[in-house]
Amino acid sequence: MTEREAMSEAEEFLKVARAARDAATVLAPMPRAPKDAALRAVADALEAATDEIVAANAVDVDRARESGTSEAMIDRLRLDAGRIAKIADAVREVADLPDPVGEVVRGSTLPNGLELRQVRVPLGVIGIIYEGRPNVTVDAAALCLKSGNGVLLRGSSSAYSSNSALVRVMQEALAATGVPSDAVQLVPGQTRESVKHLMRARGLVDVLIPRGGASLINSVVEESTVPVIETGVGNCHVYVDADADIDTALKILVNAKAQRPSVCNAAETLLVHAAIADEFVPRALTALKDAGVTVHGDERVRAYGADVVAATEEDFTSEYLSLDIAAAVVDSLDDAVAHIRRYGSAHTDAIVTRSQQAARRFVATVDSAAVAVNASTRFTDGGEFGFGAEIGISTQKLHARGPMGLPELTSTKWIYTGEGHVRA
Amino acid sequence: MTEREAMSEAEEFLKVARAARDAATVLAPMPRAPKDAALRAVADALEAATDEIVAANAVDVDRARESGTSEAMIDRLRLDAGRIAKIADAVREVADLPDPVGEVVRGSTLPNGLELRQVRVPLGVIGIIYEGRPNVTVDAAALCLKSGNGVLLRGSSSAYSSNSALVRVMQEALAATGVPSDAVQLVPGQTRESVKHLMRARGLVDVLIPRGGASLINSVVEESTVPVIETGVGNCHVYVDADADIDTALKILVNAKAQRPSVCNAAETLLVHAAIADEFVPRALTALKDAGVTVHGDERVRAYGADVVAATEEDFTSEYLSLDIAAAVVDSLDDAVAHIRRYGSAHTDAIVTRSQQAARRFVATVDSAAVAVNASTRFTDGGEFGFGAEIGISTQKLHARGPMGLPELTSTKWIYTGEGHVRA
Repeated sequence: MTEREAMSEAEEFLKVARAARDAATVLAPMPRAPKDAALRAVADALEAATDEIVAANAVDVDRARESGTSEAMIDRLRLDAGRIAKIADAVREVADLPDPVGEVVRGSTLPNGLELRQVRVPLGVIGIIYEGRPNVTVDAAALCLKSGNGVLLRGSSSAYSSNSALVRVMQEALAATGVPSDAVQLVPGQTRESVKHLMRARGLVDVLIPRGGASLINSVVEESTVPVIETGVGNCHVYVDADADIDTALKILVNAKAQRPSVCNAAETLLVHAAIADEFVPRALTALKDAGVTVHGDERVRAYGADVVAATEEDFTSEYLSLDIAAAVVDSLDDAVAHIRRYGSAHTDAIVTRSQQAARRFVATVDSAAVAVNASTRFTDGGEFGFGAEIGISTQKLHARGPMGLPELTSTKWIYTGEGHVRA
Repeated sequence: MTEREAMSEAEEFLKVARAARDAATVLAPMPRAPKDAALRAVADALEAATDEIVAANAVDVDRARESGTSEAMIDRLRLDAGRIAKIADAVREVADLPDPVGEVVRGSTLPNGLELRQVRVPLGVIGIIYEGRPNVTVDAAALCLKSGNGVLLRGSSSAYSSNSALVRVMQEALAATGVPSDAVQLVPGQTRESVKHLMRARGLVDVLIPRGGASLINSVVEESTVPVIETGVGNCHVYVDADADIDTALKILVNAKAQRPSVCNAAETLLVHAAIADEFVPRALTALKDAGVTVHGDERVRAYGADVVAATEEDFTSEYLSLDIAAAVVDSLDDAVAHIRRYGSAHTDAIVTRSQQAARRFVATVDSAAVAVNASTRFTDGGEFGFGAEIGISTQKLHARGPMGLPELTSTKWIYTGEGHVRA
């Protein structure tokens, strides 16, 4: 990129960011009805533009094939009429959800007669950086619009043609509604520089939500002056306590690991209390093997099976997202918690136990976004929790923790009304 | 500072930060009773150590006097038996407040029978960077302990001797209780480097709360990799609408500006609708003059009084914290809102009006932490809002906005309990 091109990309970015900000100012005080009408118009427009979107997507698919991308990855990238219809339906589902904006969170009349209330308001402009499939472009835009926010979308450069088409269709649809079409913007450019513009746009962008692998998220956290909500890295643990029911533990372990290994709430490490290891570990190794899972075990786990690969320190910090699991035997519940604190990503950690005391202690001392008792880690999900939709799963403690639905895309404003009240 | 000293300060910092983190892990699951008992022990110990604290404070006072600090600033720094008793009482008041930790924020039984609840938990370790009086050292520590958090305190270097004594007394008092004494720590060192250690302590510190002037807060926001909650810069506006009651407007204006000009919720800018300017501005200038306030006006305001100083662009962005106010005439409510958006700090902005429609539009379109209708900006305060105590006033949108009480010092954790639940 020449200096001149770099400059023009920076200017382009500022242009779309300011447009999103101005649009967000108009969008913020809007009530629910015009926002829902706009979302339904977007859904209809996406379906009507199926041919245009599929053609744009073919450009990305061809480029991916030329560069030797695996068929599995190409399949994640591909859009067809059926997938576009599903994307549109997801937008209609967002329209059906309650509007978080305007909800009175707290309120009272103060002793001096001032009427005080705390009301949900949009955050402003939300930047989303994602590596996922093109459907994220539409899902994220719909959730941001519904919650009254402008959105700057920065998807994978491998899906740039598809994302451009999707955003263009959404903007055209919005232009015929009360919602300003500039509220949805694709960050221009496909280079790393365009991500940097977003990270330095303090004052124009209110929050950045990176969705993707650990390296993307770490670089955003390190470099961004815009506040960040970290999402999605899940090194989830299943701890099988001394008091576990063996069959329950096996069922939960296999489900948490193998039911859908590519997602962040899948289990990546098994911890087994020493008192139950003789009984449990051999059966666990068989069950995992039957499910196609490779076990990377510490020395104590390796004593139970010849197939177990020797685990390194790295295995215990890994988010495999594959049919692999790290495994260790621990001497106590407290050792299991210490292991989770040391190696975990504070996403979701589960205990399997019949003991009230053990469950209580595990829940109190594991410092993660979600703690599961006698349940698979796979339930940490906005859909499962009944949110209707999810923008990601926060693994940080500020603002939002765990699955983020529409309320997590809002801030609040205090309003107080008097009749000439002054402080004495 | 030599390289060796710098290294040892960095090592010292890591030592206290790790100690605070370990202590916070023990403190987090503690119920209310032992925390309250520890706070009462701290209060008693502070009073019992009055002589020791006053002696340590004298070191700071003497040093300040030698360096030519103003008597007003020295008075802010000074501790005596009366002030120490007040500090101790404030700790007892924190002990009397409800414990936010453990509160069930949401909960339900999911369709599949999983019992789901979202529960307040401590944030972990909170770093506080402050310039204020030594009482902040104790106030902040008490609020953090009550909410189950460890705290790293980095006060003004001008109060280092006082703060060291206060922290020492608190730690000694805690040592005799169930709360680990390492939960309260003073950041070692008095140089800018010690602030940097705090800002780079991601993983050890969960959130940084800078309390002070705009330049401190901006530098923390710019440099910190630890998530930051911005507080306290208040360029607050009073907008006198075309439909305002003149006497109400005068009363609110003078109170907002002059009742306590040194605080963040004091008004710094007056905006007057053109339709009421002839009637209102001359009376406002007289009332402000009587209150000892210097007015920095735009051209239209200057037409009403010879005493009005010409306002520069900088006046409209200034947080004076003194008996000065910027003033401008605007042509509409929307122009007033645009001015507030452009120059304000999104702390507190007030409208004075008899019109429901004007109030409604101002509240909907001013994007600030607090919006006051027919009331002084001075009410934006944790005490006034009934929180009982306040750690600061957030002017950002993420996590907490406006006055922050104990619940704002917590995060949440999702807990779900099943009986072998797995996903299909």
